[in-house]
Amino acid sequence: MTTRRDFLAAAAAATIAPHFNGPLCAGQKRGAAESEAGKLGYALVGLGRLSTNQIAPALMKTEHSKLVGVVSGSAEKAGKWKDQYAIPDDNIYNYRNFDRIIDNQEIDVVYVVLPNSMHEEFAIRAARAGKHVLCEKPMSISSAECRRMIEACDHAGVKLAVGYRCQYEPHHLECIRMAREETFGKLQHIDAGFGFRIADYPVGDLRRWRLEREMAGGGALMDVGIYAIQACRYLTGEEPTSLMASEIKTDSKKFAEVDETILWSMAFPSGVSANCTTTYNFNGINQFRAYSEKGQFGLKPAFGYGGIQGTAGNEAVRGENVDQFATEMDQFSQVIKQDGTTKVSGIEGLRDLLVTEAIYESIRTGKRVDVAKV
Amino acid sequence: MTTRRDFLAAAAAATIAPHFNGPLCAGQKRGAAESEAGKLGYALVGLGRLSTNQIAPALMKTEHSKLVGVVSGSAEKAGKWKDQYAIPDDNIYNYRNFDRIIDNQEIDVVYVVLPNSMHEEFAIRAARAGKHVLCEKPMSISSAECRRMIEACDHAGVKLAVGYRCQYEPHHLECIRMAREETFGKLQHIDAGFGFRIADYPVGDLRRWRLEREMAGGGALMDVGIYAIQACRYLTGEEPTSLMASEIKTDSKKFAEVDETILWSMAFPSGVSANCTTTYNFNGINQFRAYSEKGQFGLKPAFGYGGIQGTAGNEAVRGENVDQFATEMDQFSQVIKQDGTTKVSGIEGLRDLLVTEAIYESIRTGKRVDVAKV
Repeated sequence: MTTRRDFLAAAAAATIAPHFNGPLCAGQKRGAAESEAGKLGYALVGLGRLSTNQIAPALMKTEHSKLVGVVSGSAEKAGKWKDQYAIPDDNIYNYRNFDRIIDNQEIDVVYVVLPNSMHEEFAIRAARAGKHVLCEKPMSISSAECRRMIEACDHAGVKLAVGYRCQYEPHHLECIRMAREETFGKLQHIDAGFGFRIADYPVGDLRRWRLEREMAGGGALMDVGIYAIQACRYLTGEEPTSLMASEIKTDSKKFAEVDETILWSMAFPSGVSANCTTTYNFNGINQFRAYSEKGQFGLKPAFGYGGIQGTAGNEAVRGENVDQFATEMDQFSQVIKQDGTTKVSGIEGLRDLLVTEAIYESIRTGKRVDVAKV
Repeated sequence: MTTRRDFLAAAAAATIAPHFNGPLCAGQKRGAAESEAGKLGYALVGLGRLSTNQIAPALMKTEHSKLVGVVSGSAEKAGKWKDQYAIPDDNIYNYRNFDRIIDNQEIDVVYVVLPNSMHEEFAIRAARAGKHVLCEKPMSISSAECRRMIEACDHAGVKLAVGYRCQYEPHHLECIRMAREETFGKLQHIDAGFGFRIADYPVGDLRRWRLEREMAGGGALMDVGIYAIQACRYLTGEEPTSLMASEIKTDSKKFAEVDETILWSMAFPSGVSANCTTTYNFNGINQFRAYSEKGQFGLKPAFGYGGIQGTAGNEAVRGENVDQFATEMDQFSQVIKQDGTTKVSGIEGLRDLLVTEAIYESIRTGKRVDVAKV
């Protein structure tokens, strides 16, 4: 525990940029309303597998965050959570009465863990209720939605963060450090890819939303390709200027509505090139590799919830495997407490959506596409 | 030695498809004129570093091939070779008197090791002189040239092979076997890349032809990207149907005439996708990886003259490191002796040029391009 705490402290020191000017914002005021033991109260919206298997267990380990509420469309699910996590009736909401959360002083943060197309609505409703918003990736299904979410949070004076857990993962942080400090000289090229073979969900199974355009907004790219976009962006510290993408579709029935396999290349201002892959059709691609003047470094597997490892030159990339969701939430809680700036802000989410939209445009037009600016 | 001989025998049995119909061709007749010990006589055209450091030493180890002649534009170079390899005066040619090779019974094969743009001329002149042709990769700088070379060799009744040494390299053969036999299930995706940081040749240095369009025809793609094209083609056993490519240029002075870094993706008929990288700007990319239903296999480093290694699932890819040039030449000599068909024929070279041209077209137009058929 000491080691993880040390890491959290070090990471927090490195990533939180305090605001020195202007009046205290809503977030800072809310610091005074913190729950016992100084932990911020989280309400999870959407009680699917991610909430069940990762986020709730993580909230049993967090030092600055605790599970205090749930929002679910299913009374049955909410009931189970109430029993398992001793959640008071007053802290259980459904999608209709969710806005009443404005009156709940125990809830500081709403963590949006819904299907992609529902992110915008619930992030904005949470902001209007004066709650800080942590939103799972992808932040939403369009850059327009991202902009509205940012605007709503700014207007409400609440903080907005995207669930980019890798940006707090020790091996990723070590790779970012090596890229920034040019440990292996100037970065020149990145290969990155993440994908898996998605199950053939039976028709009528609620969980098949990932294969439905209306719910998911897109397929592999939206869901896991975004990790490759992220890796290229945080390794270079730059935004891609242009890209070219193509889709391979081998199963037009299963993937009738969303993308199956996408390959894309990106050019960065410093001259770094990146070649990326994402898929819902095959397992095993889960890595990035940074080619630099004097050597290579990278992670494989890179993007899972655990078991992250990699090499830097001839050595292993240093870092321990932590609970990434616990780290992500505790980081956000600390940002809120200190009225700092999160590095996984809404702008960060918006940037990925701009890249995503350029990729889809390139696929649609068959042409090279410039990436729009924030 | 026994092991290598066994491998050669096995590989020969696997790769030589005898012709059972039609009259004996020129190649088979020439079998009777073989040099002592049954070895075919090779003349090298172009005495640069590849001939000096790789091919001539390899010819000291070959069992079916021997160095008997040289063709050089430099009398000084030819003189050195004459002394070092005891080459008779009658077997030394320059670019002007080269056609007299038609009268030389000791020379069975002309191995073209010239800058890319000179391949066509010397391959065709060799064919017209009744010599079998082994031509370094890329076969030439355009598909039109490839077609003329194939036509000239067919017309002359001589065999034409391209120096695709990897197609005889044991680790590559093992990977091809795993792909064909679906050891890890159906192949689904390939990542492949080869590149290096090319030296800043001083102006006037003869060796800087690789940076000159007129001599090289292209840059990294022509020179080393072709290994990635080859890997994707021989792993799938298919021709790509369409592709999309982009170039990253960071040094427009050094790479004023030829391509620097190219990223491209290809779609194959079976649904396999491939993501490829080539560069003259950075070191370290030298690999391929095949993602299949039940696991991965690949080589890294994959394309050098030695030190090939890789993994298949959790094990090392089986194979020993051989002299790839010796193997390549002995394979061709055996094909000639047995009047077989080489798997690295002119058609194979043409196919790579068709892909290469599609890549350049995609870069030029910024659009997805269909690959032309043979």
